[in-house]
Amino acid sequence: MSENKQALIPKLVLEPIVRAALLEDLGRAGDVTSAAVVPEHTQARVRMVARQPGVLAGLDAARLTFRLVDSGLRIAVAKQDGDALYAGDVIAHIQGNARALMTGERVALNFLGHLSGIATLTSQFAVAIAHTKARICCTRKTLPGLRILQKYAVRVGGGVNHRFGLDDGILIKDNHISASGGMGQAIARARASAGHMLKIEVEAETLAELDEALAAGVDAVLLDNMDAPTLKTAMARIAGRAIAEASGGVTLENVVGIAEAGVDLISIGALTHSAPNLDIALDFDALV
Amino acid sequence: MSENKQALIPKLVLEPIVRAALLEDLGRAGDVTSAAVVPEHTQARVRMVARQPGVLAGLDAARLTFRLVDSGLRIAVAKQDGDALYAGDVIAHIQGNARALMTGERVALNFLGHLSGIATLTSQFAVAIAHTKARICCTRKTLPGLRILQKYAVRVGGGVNHRFGLDDGILIKDNHISASGGMGQAIARARASAGHMLKIEVEAETLAELDEALAAGVDAVLLDNMDAPTLKTAMARIAGRAIAEASGGVTLENVVGIAEAGVDLISIGALTHSAPNLDIALDFDALV
Amino acid sequence: MSENKQALIPKLVLEPIVRAALLEDLGRAGDVTSAAVVPEHTQARVRMVARQPGVLAGLDAARLTFRLVDSGLRIAVAKQDGDALYAGDVIAHIQGNARALMTGERVALNFLGHLSGIATLTSQFAVAIAHTKARICCTRKTLPGLRILQKYAVRVGGGVNHRFGLDDGILIKDNHISASGGMGQAIARARASAGHMLKIEVEAETLAELDEALAAGVDAVLLDNMDAPTLKTAMARIAGRAIAEASGGVTLENVVGIAEAGVDLISIGALTHSAPNLDIALDFDALV
Amino acid sequence: MSENKQALIPKLVLEPIVRAALLEDLGRAGDVTSAAVVPEHTQARVRMVARQPGVLAGLDAARLTFRLVDSGLRIAVAKQDGDALYAGDVIAHIQGNARALMTGERVALNFLGHLSGIATLTSQFAVAIAHTKARICCTRKTLPGLRILQKYAVRVGGGVNHRFGLDDGILIKDNHISASGGMGQAIARARASAGHMLKIEVEAETLAELDEALAAGVDAVLLDNMDAPTLKTAMARIAGRAIAEASGGVTLENVVGIAEAGVDLISIGALTHSAPNLDIALDFDALV
Amino acid sequence: MSENKQALIPKLVLEPIVRAALLEDLGRAGDVTSAAVVPEHTQARVRMVARQPGVLAGLDAARLTFRLVDSGLRIAVAKQDGDALYAGDVIAHIQGNARALMTGERVALNFLGHLSGIATLTSQFAVAIAHTKARICCTRKTLPGLRILQKYAVRVGGGVNHRFGLDDGILIKDNHISASGGMGQAIARARASAGHMLKIEVEAETLAELDEALAAGVDAVLLDNMDAPTLKTAMARIAGRAIAEASGGVTLENVVGIAEAGVDLISIGALTHSAPNLDIALDFDALV
Amino acid sequence: MSENKQALIPKLVLEPIVRAALLEDLGRAGDVTSAAVVPEHTQARVRMVARQPGVLAGLDAARLTFRLVDSGLRIAVAKQDGDALYAGDVIAHIQGNARALMTGERVALNFLGHLSGIATLTSQFAVAIAHTKARICCTRKTLPGLRILQKYAVRVGGGVNHRFGLDDGILIKDNHISASGGMGQAIARARASAGHMLKIEVEAETLAELDEALAAGVDAVLLDNMDAPTLKTAMARIAGRAIAEASGGVTLENVVGIAEAGVDLISIGALTHSAPNLDIALDFDALV
Repeated sequence: MSENKQALIPKLVLEPIVRAALLEDLGRAGDVTSAAVVPEHTQARVRMVARQPGVLAGLDAARLTFRLVDSGLRIAVAKQDGDALYAGDVIAHIQGNARALMTGERVALNFLGHLSGIATLTSQFAVAIAHTKARICCTRKTLPGLRILQKYAVRVGGGVNHRFGLDDGILIKDNHISASGGMGQAIARARASAGHMLKIEVEAETLAELDEALAAGVDAVLLDNMDAPTLKTAMARIAGRAIAEASGGVTLENVVGIAEAGVDLISIGALTHSAPNLDIALDFDALV
Repeated sequence: MSENKQALIPKLVLEPIVRAALLEDLGRAGDVTSAAVVPEHTQARVRMVARQPGVLAGLDAARLTFRLVDSGLRIAVAKQDGDALYAGDVIAHIQGNARALMTGERVALNFLGHLSGIATLTSQFAVAIAHTKARICCTRKTLPGLRILQKYAVRVGGGVNHRFGLDDGILIKDNHISASGGMGQAIARARASAGHMLKIEVEAETLAELDEALAAGVDAVLLDNMDAPTLKTAMARIAGRAIAEASGGVTLENVVGIAEAGVDLISIGALTHSAPNLDIALDFDALV
Repeated sequence: MSENKQALIPKLVLEPIVRAALLEDLGRAGDVTSAAVVPEHTQARVRMVARQPGVLAGLDAARLTFRLVDSGLRIAVAKQDGDALYAGDVIAHIQGNARALMTGERVALNFLGHLSGIATLTSQFAVAIAHTKARICCTRKTLPGLRILQKYAVRVGGGVNHRFGLDDGILIKDNHISASGGMGQAIARARASAGHMLKIEVEAETLAELDEALAAGVDAVLLDNMDAPTLKTAMARIAGRAIAEASGGVTLENVVGIAEAGVDLISIGALTHSAPNLDIALDFDALV
Repeated sequence: MSENKQALIPKLVLEPIVRAALLEDLGRAGDVTSAAVVPEHTQARVRMVARQPGVLAGLDAARLTFRLVDSGLRIAVAKQDGDALYAGDVIAHIQGNARALMTGERVALNFLGHLSGIATLTSQFAVAIAHTKARICCTRKTLPGLRILQKYAVRVGGGVNHRFGLDDGILIKDNHISASGGMGQAIARARASAGHMLKIEVEAETLAELDEALAAGVDAVLLDNMDAPTLKTAMARIAGRAIAEASGGVTLENVVGIAEAGVDLISIGALTHSAPNLDIALDFDALV
Repeated sequence: MSENKQALIPKLVLEPIVRAALLEDLGRAGDVTSAAVVPEHTQARVRMVARQPGVLAGLDAARLTFRLVDSGLRIAVAKQDGDALYAGDVIAHIQGNARALMTGERVALNFLGHLSGIATLTSQFAVAIAHTKARICCTRKTLPGLRILQKYAVRVGGGVNHRFGLDDGILIKDNHISASGGMGQAIARARASAGHMLKIEVEAETLAELDEALAAGVDAVLLDNMDAPTLKTAMARIAGRAIAEASGGVTLENVVGIAEAGVDLISIGALTHSAPNLDIALDFDALV
Repeated sequence: MSENKQALIPKLVLEPIVRAALLEDLGRAGDVTSAAVVPEHTQARVRMVARQPGVLAGLDAARLTFRLVDSGLRIAVAKQDGDALYAGDVIAHIQGNARALMTGERVALNFLGHLSGIATLTSQFAVAIAHTKARICCTRKTLPGLRILQKYAVRVGGGVNHRFGLDDGILIKDNHISASGGMGQAIARARASAGHMLKIEVEAETLAELDEALAAGVDAVLLDNMDAPTLKTAMARIAGRAIAEASGGVTLENVVGIAEAGVDLISIGALTHSAPNLDIALDFDALV
């Protein structure tokens, strides 16, 4: 089991999400199949098993899913979020009422498969650039309603989080700049208005824009769609005066070159909008 | 524009989802960048543009996103859900307050990119088997909180919907069968308990199980993980007595063989849990 | 106590309903009478008693009401949902803080009286036709916000449930038919659009309409407002090709004739929109 | 149309109730029948018609139901809440999208039928005692979640409202009295603790208890289960010193005698827990 | 510790308020500082201490705050709501996970400081007039969303509560009177329409208006902005026929004169809209 | 009217707060006084007037309050948030249904009075130090549920906002430091874990702690409870290397000295936890 756990999602925040997911699946009449077919007091024992290699994320959501269905289910975890999984690895053993296990199964696995998928993809990028100082970072390109969970999965996979929303950082993009009459004016307005705890990051599509941003003294620059050689030039100009984030069209193929250009962060929308599911399943062991 | 629209998501159902997505992004302080940088009454005109080929889905959600941010935004659509998109196609023109456009941009695109991604993947499967009678079908392997939207996108892409939850159909799987003491008993219990409007489907992993299910007179059979030759044998035994659904490990490579085996439905979890995002963006045309 | 329990309402679904009912009664200032008049630590013991004969339904809602007021109340049930009640029967003993008992009393009894009233009325119909194969069925004529509970009470009383909403079955009525240009077209459209797990039922007001529906191969027919002799003719024509549901103007007087005509289901709106309350009360035994 | 309208339910209060009722019926997939069968732009015109004589209540809820489904529906009312209805009376004409009309129909009628049923039953009692000074009054024996609507319907039917909850009046019952060590002490505690705007009513089962309550100077007395002669004696003792409310076992048979005994109020739980539905329906006139 | 506790806020009412306050502070990412800086299993022991003299109120809200953050925190209270506090007094000892303590600290203290501030201000007024029969009373001038808690704090400070909302009492002000064509008509309309459990209070700005109200037989009069001599005259005219409430411009300087004029109630908006915070803090004793 | 408006609260965020405030006041039965006393179609015209000098804040909330009660009310504003008010100044004219005006009055004024109170107090501090570079800043010592509105009012009054919650900035206090084994370690942990957009601020109670924080290279320092001379020394040591925030015991008396010591920010809990209400009222002009 891993030692170094990421900051968990507060239970107060997680519970309404899990509750809503269960209600979405229960509908109005509940699990009509289990209620009809499985005798009321049947007990079962199941193993939660990885069918694919990857990185585990979402155990808390899965555990809470089962507990909200039936607080009597006993769950013994064998893995922690962040642990590497190999096909066949047992993640947890769960025991208790058979109906409850079947009722919670799909929702729990939907959380686990999606979040582990994100952690796995993040980890693939993070491992590829582990020899550099760069870190993999998420974006606001998340699936509606799932941002907090998705950003948590990115952390579990070894990435770091960019802004959680429109309100916890200033990020000035090209449209902001044209709407405000130039980068200098945009940055000046931002500095005058933002609270002192908000950092200011500016998107630069060219080295000229980068120079302008650096001259204005921003906290961070988003180097948009620059290739590795351009990034190297950019880093030389930045010379430690701002945090450097590379973004745009990052793949497992080109990420190493980008990282080796010396940037601090590489942000990737695909982590949260296109990560494929990790296949995790429940095996019913024995009906006690 | 397409003629044949799918049943839309009722506005009463859609609005709370869009509202929650916006609040998730606005946080407590709202769009601090636009508020700081863009003058209050600046107007803008934007084009919503496809960056990749695919099938459009999610226009209603995107439109409602912008309207909830600012009811004064004028939106003129050039495409409809279900339309084929080519890279560069303009989907809609939106005009109005520049801050509002920037505030709503990301949430609107998050809906559009995800749902169009699902419609596109569904369409790829549907097109591949268009010469057969089989139809592509979704599962309950959806992302928490997004099931209604995801199932809508599957329909838009040319697929059909399986159960929306645990309550609108009886689906007896292997674990139900072992917990109830055999398939015959499980089906009998289901028939005795289910309302007359609920169909009964049973999972069969072998031809022997299929025979048992057919003998019990079920409405549908889920043929789990059978290869094409086995499916052909299965279809011969079914002989029109039940709806036949193939499931398990379906890919664009093997789907044609499965469809040509004669099944009625091919269900694919990846449609909703692993569809990559379709790249759609806003281009800011002119600041009026 | 009864052996054969109906599928319960999932606690995740029940709790928000009970919580809302309590808040409706507590208002802003809570139970001002008990708070003012009853010393804080007074204990009491009460018996929940039937004042009328009938069938019990709603124990879970009543129990949860008391528990949400004060988790320290001890509740020992002597009857189960579905049990026959005679005037004077003790349903449960509850013991604990006197204020809490008084605060929860009315809401708990409002659930019990209403749901037991429905179970009792359903049972009267079900008993009357027990010698036939027909079953008593509810409708969507339910009281707003109470559908899940009311449909549960129908099951407890020996009835079965029709659709829970507009989405878990296709029911084509006369207005649908005229709006779509004829029954054949309506059924064809429904078949093309509905998921494979949804059954299709068609309303027939005449034998001619019935023939048309049967020719189209529907799953079920709703025989609307037909008298017993017409129903007999109808059943002969159906000859097992579809589930037959009789509906319209059913009373305890005419239900036997309808059932003996051979229909499968008899649906009755009054079960859920007009069932009189069953009189159940709390007797305070002793202030410990 | 009636002149004298009762205080309406504030729209802020009504709308969440109607919205929840619609969502309860729409489920996850919405009105699948209309979506499948009725062409999208079909228009229809319907009449809302009484099938039984009674008193109308609930128009606002019905109107809001249709508007929340489709704000384009045009509704012209021919009757007002409180109006007498005869079988065949047209209550309203509604015109617009056929799908929307069918989608809203059942929920709108569920509100109307239930609330008109309450208004009708209340009116029957109120008319019977119109020659006396007594007024018909509701109780807290309401159906969970529907109290505000039910109490409104009682007013529409000519009744008056008792407490809306546990917090807007002090009502000391027998159990409160025994738990607090006697009626005198209970009343003294209530007076010391209650805000000055809360009235104090005490339940009296005997004339001796009545005397005790009057001696303590309460605002109102609830004369529980007394027959008409006893009520007359009670009224003589009260002699205008308190409001007199009769309660317990009131029927249309005995209500006149109770009213003629001179009481101010007659409270009847059945108004809200057992009023049968009033049959109101939609007739589809023409598909425009 | 005090003996005489006020009616507590029902937990069902309190919990959503506390939960919302915590979510307001946790935002999307939770307590990032504690998660980053404090090792996960660090234990701590803290004392909740008064930094100023005053009256304690809000312990239940503070306790629930900590419990919702971490149900494992152990809280031992040394004071009760209503107790006098001196600077340095220990209110409670709390022990448990250090992160949880830091996460809950600010929200808990925000409740405690505000509610104790109200109780303290109320108590100052109540003590000043303790030699009279008058009681200090709150108004509807409360802070949005906090009314129930604020009114509770007034009770804790020795005051009594006026109406909780627009619906639990009739209070006829000058604008009501002019809109209804005179005081007599206003009172007559109120009496005809209000339920029998609602009291009627009328605002009188002059002695002439007072006479008119008394002649109409109201339950209470609100003597608006009268000085002490006028109030004395008013009390002589009232002569016990109505409850007398003085209101308008009440300060600690003039309250004694008002109370000695003989009124029953003195209502003060500042109790709930302008009470300064009472300084209460957490001292971290030892990291166990 | 002022030119320079602060970033407004998004309507999506504001509306649920206003709606909840209205429901809190309407209770279950609504405005029973107006409904009883004021004829249904009476029109009125009112002026919203300042009774005290101050700074206006909260117009949007007040306006939305009236609109949610009755969308037909016409509101013409004469002042904007941020405008200086003198006693007698007319803030707005509102015209429409008299009942609606009376129903919305108290909630609208509760928002206005509280938020204007905060803006006024903030402005007093801001004006006092206008000759310095320091800015007045709020804290997380806000009233539960009102943080977003209170922080907006601080901005309107000329202040700036500190963190909105525990998640949009790292603020390391003394307890964090002791729990993590020293300031250096705490800052190192924070830097390793926090996203790149989060600033790190550290509390320093002594100059030694300040030196330690500066050595670690933090973004900002919170100089806790230092007197003006110490602050001057601190500023000399900081020498522009970090943002300097003074906090603790700030009053209108000592704020100038603190500001003149050269700090960047002065944070004051009293702005949001102890600002007295600003007296604003409605004058009913004429009943049209």
